Amino acid sequence: LNPEIYILGSSSATPTRERHPSSQILKIGSEKIMIDCGEGTQSQLIKYGLRHTGIDYICISHLHGDHYFGLIGLISTMSLMGRKETLHIIGPPQLKHILDLQIMHGGMTLKFEIRFYPTNPARQEFILRNQSFELTSFPLKHRIHCTGFLVRESKKERHLNMEVMQALEIPVSYFKAIKKGENYTLPDGEEVPNERMTTDPEPCRSYAYCSDTIFDPEIVEYVQGVNILYHESTYMKNNEERASLYFHSTAEQAATIAKMAKAGHLLIGHFSSRYDHLAPLLEEAREVFPNTDLAEEGEKFVMSTASQVLVHS
Amino acid sequence: LNPEIYILGSSSATPTRERHPSSQILKIGSEKIMIDCGEGTQSQLIKYGLRHTGIDYICISHLHGDHYFGLIGLISTMSLMGRKETLHIIGPPQLKHILDLQIMHGGMTLKFEIRFYPTNPARQEFILRNQSFELTSFPLKHRIHCTGFLVRESKKERHLNMEVMQALEIPVSYFKAIKKGENYTLPDGEEVPNERMTTDPEPCRSYAYCSDTIFDPEIVEYVQGVNILYHESTYMKNNEERASLYFHSTAEQAATIAKMAKAGHLLIGHFSSRYDHLAPLLEEAREVFPNTDLAEEGEKFVMSTASQVLVHS
Repeated sequence: LNPEIYILGSSSATPTRERHPSSQILKIGSEKIMIDCGEGTQSQLIKYGLRHTGIDYICISHLHGDHYFGLIGLISTMSLMGRKETLHIIGPPQLKHILDLQIMHGGMTLKFEIRFYPTNPARQEFILRNQSFELTSFPLKHRIHCTGFLVRESKKERHLNMEVMQALEIPVSYFKAIKKGENYTLPDGEEVPNERMTTDPEPCRSYAYCSDTIFDPEIVEYVQGVNILYHESTYMKNNEERASLYFHSTAEQAATIAKMAKAGHLLIGHFSSRYDHLAPLLEEAREVFPNTDLAEEGEKFVMSTASQVLVHS
Repeated sequence: LNPEIYILGSSSATPTRERHPSSQILKIGSEKIMIDCGEGTQSQLIKYGLRHTGIDYICISHLHGDHYFGLIGLISTMSLMGRKETLHIIGPPQLKHILDLQIMHGGMTLKFEIRFYPTNPARQEFILRNQSFELTSFPLKHRIHCTGFLVRESKKERHLNMEVMQALEIPVSYFKAIKKGENYTLPDGEEVPNERMTTDPEPCRSYAYCSDTIFDPEIVEYVQGVNILYHESTYMKNNEERASLYFHSTAEQAATIAKMAKAGHLLIGHFSSRYDHLAPLLEEAREVFPNTDLAEEGEKFVMSTASQVLVHS
């Protein structure tokens, strides 16, 4: 199963007639991760036929409203719909205070646990790992505490070479251990090295999310070689000074980070409401990094097995 | 100028594909009042071509999310758009703590003042008065601190009888005082009573907003004789027990309050997501109170000068 990215919002700062504030869903393994959750995200889920059930992880990059004002509404709906499963929320520590206050004063009695993971704006940090993915946060330079997120598929099982397994008459009960990389000892005491019985699994694919941030080459080390890089692109090059002033990036700068990081694919989003048409932003980015797409509402990007080949619909 | 009511949301609890959580705009005199502000209200304003500039008053009935989760996003947008005018917010005292926390942790530096008026869930209270309207809150019985709002046009100036004014040669500089009801003393010392010089102004029209509440005849005294009564109607009669259990009302109960209060017109809203079609709710209410309409998204209701005649578009 290939990881998929669904774009729910592409606007910066305020919603516009056509665009919604930031939110994405990453389906990876058996999990769904929401990344950022601007106002109206739950309505965007309905619009695109995506369910909130099964979203067990929500990552919030920072506490500007266009990245989190929809979270409490989504939690409220999950509660009203009878959710029981633990919800893991990853974000700045102050987010927990805000949610707690809203839950308390709204008289909400949640029937599910919220497990909160505070992010650290000072350095890269491992957040959590499960059967489907590993999640890391890393610092972004914005006006307030802000982090990006790196999601990498969990280590996969090695593929058994069935011909070898049969020739050596290895019992099925050992397959699981061998898939994990263990050797096998034959009845006569001879040890069979794992490499003789297995082949490499598909590489672990990875997705990095960088919003919001000033142009910052220090990001490169955190997102080196990712299959897909999402990088904000609030402005175009002719607004580079403005971008700097507000700690945002231009399309060209996003593409420069993608190029430096040798990313497979670049998605740009978080567009200023001044841009009615986004084609010029895409062109600007593609001049530096050709394999770029617009992360617009309703778009779905599939990370195919061939690590850097992408289809979007 | 007739007061107008614009409906931005009609759903209870959660947004649906077709309906949005509670919010209304009341244009009265030279003012615009927003009443409740569910998630996505700012997008609804954009959709219906209404501006947030000029909204100087926002009333929040209670802290269930479908009535206020859109407020912080609207404040954020007002700030980003350079608002300077004082914003008057009327609502439960805890609302101020929530907004303060979100403003602080989001690093928002507002260039306008927020003047906060805490509501009292225990009794009817005068909130504020200006040239356009007088605002009162009154208790509603819901699961948490909740109030309704009564908005009444401010006392209007009396109409001058220009024939009398000319016959008595009253100088223009006295007109203002006479319009306010004062008498006039002629040069010979004779006092002219105000009633001889003026006729009554149009009656002051009034709008009452009741959401959310269990069926509660005590409401009647607060909304007696209003021109338009908005009353929640989450359920139909066959869900009366459920309505009671969750401190909500049925269409029939809303109509009963309107009838008891001798309201001119009833608007019902805050519909449960279980109702795909709203005609049955309207029918149920009209059986008790014929002059009822559905307060659906995009509807506009005009309070005409003939106090109880309404046009809606």
